Amino acid sequence: MAGRLTPEREAELYEAVLGLLREVGYDGLTMDAVATRTRSSKATLYRQWGSKPVLVARALRHNKPVKLDQIDTGSLRGDFRTAMALGDDCKMEEDAALMRGLMHAIHDDPDLHKAVRELLFEPELNGLDRIMQRAVDRGEVSADLPALKYVTHMLAGAFVGRQFIEDKAPDQAFLTDYVDAVVFPALGV
Amino acid sequence: MAGRLTPEREAELYEAVLGLLREVGYDGLTMDAVATRTRSSKATLYRQWGSKPVLVARALRHNKPVKLDQIDTGSLRGDFRTAMALGDDCKMEEDAALMRGLMHAIHDDPDLHKAVRELLFEPELNGLDRIMQRAVDRGEVSADLPALKYVTHMLAGAFVGRQFIEDKAPDQAFLTDYVDAVVFPALGV
Repeated sequence: MAGRLTPEREAELYEAVLGLLREVGYDGLTMDAVATRTRSSKATLYRQWGSKPVLVARALRHNKPVKLDQIDTGSLRGDFRTAMALGDDCKMEEDAALMRGLMHAIHDDPDLHKAVRELLFEPELNGLDRIMQRAVDRGEVSADLPALKYVTHMLAGAFVGRQFIEDKAPDQAFLTDYVDAVVFPALGV
Repeated sequence: MAGRLTPEREAELYEAVLGLLREVGYDGLTMDAVATRTRSSKATLYRQWGSKPVLVARALRHNKPVKLDQIDTGSLRGDFRTAMALGDDCKMEEDAALMRGLMHAIHDDPDLHKAVRELLFEPELNGLDRIMQRAVDRGEVSADLPALKYVTHMLAGAFVGRQFIEDKAPDQAFLTDYVDAVVFPALGV
């Protein structure tokens, strides 16, 4: 979709969007402000991304410290370890803060909800599915293990519990401990 | 706090609050409307509950299908089974819908956030802590098991994952399967 931009220029645009998100929030962010800050035209922005929700969702995806669909180390433990090693604490905290700030807007705006679901969450869920499918194919996890269908629930609990029960941002040490204490034992690995 | 009301009258007031919550939402709910519907005075409502956030949080607590702090069967499996048996699907779905409707208001209103945390979540978290502490005291779970500190995270993941990944309300069959597939294996019971 953003095919006519160089990767550097695309990254620059996403960084500008994230900067505006931090400064004025989703509701306050306008395509005019993005155009001004990036010295591009609104026509270009709409041609490349189609809408503000899509542009914001793609900027957030660009900023994700970990992209699960790009991980394939050859073992389940390796894939999880790599996912956690990629997410440095500073980027994870920043990403969590951006997502917290966006929750309100997601609740109010079905187009943003759809863009975030399709462009941000589904690639991660699909990436996790592929990680687990490869573990099954390698015989590391039994295909009929009941916990297999709950890996996303367990991981969602790590993030939600950390934020809303402990009131802290998820970090590498916490996620590593959680995966060792909960996810691997439930999967029997 | 509501000492001068009979339990029947207190329940009647809570039901009226929940009815209004469903009809007009938290923002639209006024103490005037509660007073009118329950044929009581606003002075009585404020004397008994002090504020709208506290009244709403207590009404939601009254409506909770399961109160973990009231469960003690003598075994960890028994406590979890009882918690799930108490939560009939209809009440759980209704409770989940009320909480979804309230999330927005909780985000915007620190007093409501505090009331929900103190009157609704903390009694459940404390109840769960006591269930787990008794399991440790009976020797069912080792006191230094790493998963012990993540029981709330695992359960939070069940609810959040069910709602936001599967887009369904948690029900008995799902929760029973999740506890058997994830929580018990992680706890080694």
